[in-house]
Amino acid sequence: MTKSKSDNVVWHHATVTRERREKLNGHRSVILWFTGLSGAGKSSLAHAVEEHLYQSGCRTFVFDGDNVRHGLCADLGFSPEDRVENIRRVGEMAKLFLEAGVIALTAFISPFGADRARVRSLVPHGEFLEIFCDCPLEVCEERDVKGLYKRARAGEIKDFTGISSPYEIPRDPELVVHTGALSLEESVTEVIKFLRGRGVIG
Amino acid sequence: MTKSKSDNVVWHHATVTRERREKLNGHRSVILWFTGLSGAGKSSLAHAVEEHLYQSGCRTFVFDGDNVRHGLCADLGFSPEDRVENIRRVGEMAKLFLEAGVIALTAFISPFGADRARVRSLVPHGEFLEIFCDCPLEVCEERDVKGLYKRARAGEIKDFTGISSPYEIPRDPELVVHTGALSLEESVTEVIKFLRGRGVIG
Repeated sequence: MTKSKSDNVVWHHATVTRERREKLNGHRSVILWFTGLSGAGKSSLAHAVEEHLYQSGCRTFVFDGDNVRHGLCADLGFSPEDRVENIRRVGEMAKLFLEAGVIALTAFISPFGADRARVRSLVPHGEFLEIFCDCPLEVCEERDVKGLYKRARAGEIKDFTGISSPYEIPRDPELVVHTGALSLEESVTEVIKFLRGRGVIG
Repeated sequence: MTKSKSDNVVWHHATVTRERREKLNGHRSVILWFTGLSGAGKSSLAHAVEEHLYQSGCRTFVFDGDNVRHGLCADLGFSPEDRVENIRRVGEMAKLFLEAGVIALTAFISPFGADRARVRSLVPHGEFLEIFCDCPLEVCEERDVKGLYKRARAGEIKDFTGISSPYEIPRDPELVVHTGALSLEESVTEVIKFLRGRGVIG
């Protein structure tokens, strides 16, 4: 836990609360935390779920390694400490979107259980929904959309998850989607069904 | 400018674009950057503007020193470098809300022109709207809602803007609100009129 260094800071109470935003939006806000290997389809699934939700009139936003690492976390690299800080910031940011009444979808490898648990602990129970994109390493490596596995095998990228750095499989995720076996459309259907079951959307 | 350390990162293209979000929301998204001395009424004004916008059905979110410094920037203090990093992160975060179709209101002293200019440069022309809450130091110090001026004068807080650290008055803000002279209601009216004039809201 990071202790706040801001002793001179007190909380302001806004009149536009999360509850009022959710009422305006017509759905609950949650964090959908997609986790899995590089190439498991986290980002594609998050964006496809977002498209479905948009068409249902929901307010959403997808964070992925791509948009966040060029901005908020542009000062961070891929060292163990920097990865921890990256996930911490993403968690805090997703929390703000949660307060803004938005369904925040995050698509990060987030290989370490402790980092995911830390984000979970930031928000009330039931509002951090961990979705494990379960895809075998062989399948991810065969796809190798960005050519990263090849480079990792060649030793050009160090600490590459699944090759030279561990991926800790979620012990008790709210949802497992077998992205290696299902089509994108089928995976989206799974997530939407799950969100309905949880009462996030109508 | 911070150079990205993430060489292995490529941009994903989402199908739910900012334009589509703005269409769904029925208003444009912008960053309303409130700046001014401690006690100038930035946070109160931002929250009151938000209430007005909410009642008009707009999607908004207010960032202030209070909610951000307990979360995303909990690792930062008030040293010159930490203040720069604080404003950088707030800017990057506001940019993500902008992309999410939300009217992002930020209420930070943000005393340095260079920091404000850096945030301005992050987003397209016309989407960073600097609102100078112009309130004389004497008035702020007399109000002293949080008792901070008293403590700053007593030397208990170092680098306190207006007392022991400079506030650089905005040279060319999009709007000046004389929060020392106007009532909160009058100030809100000024901002709303300004947003209509800019075509942000209908």
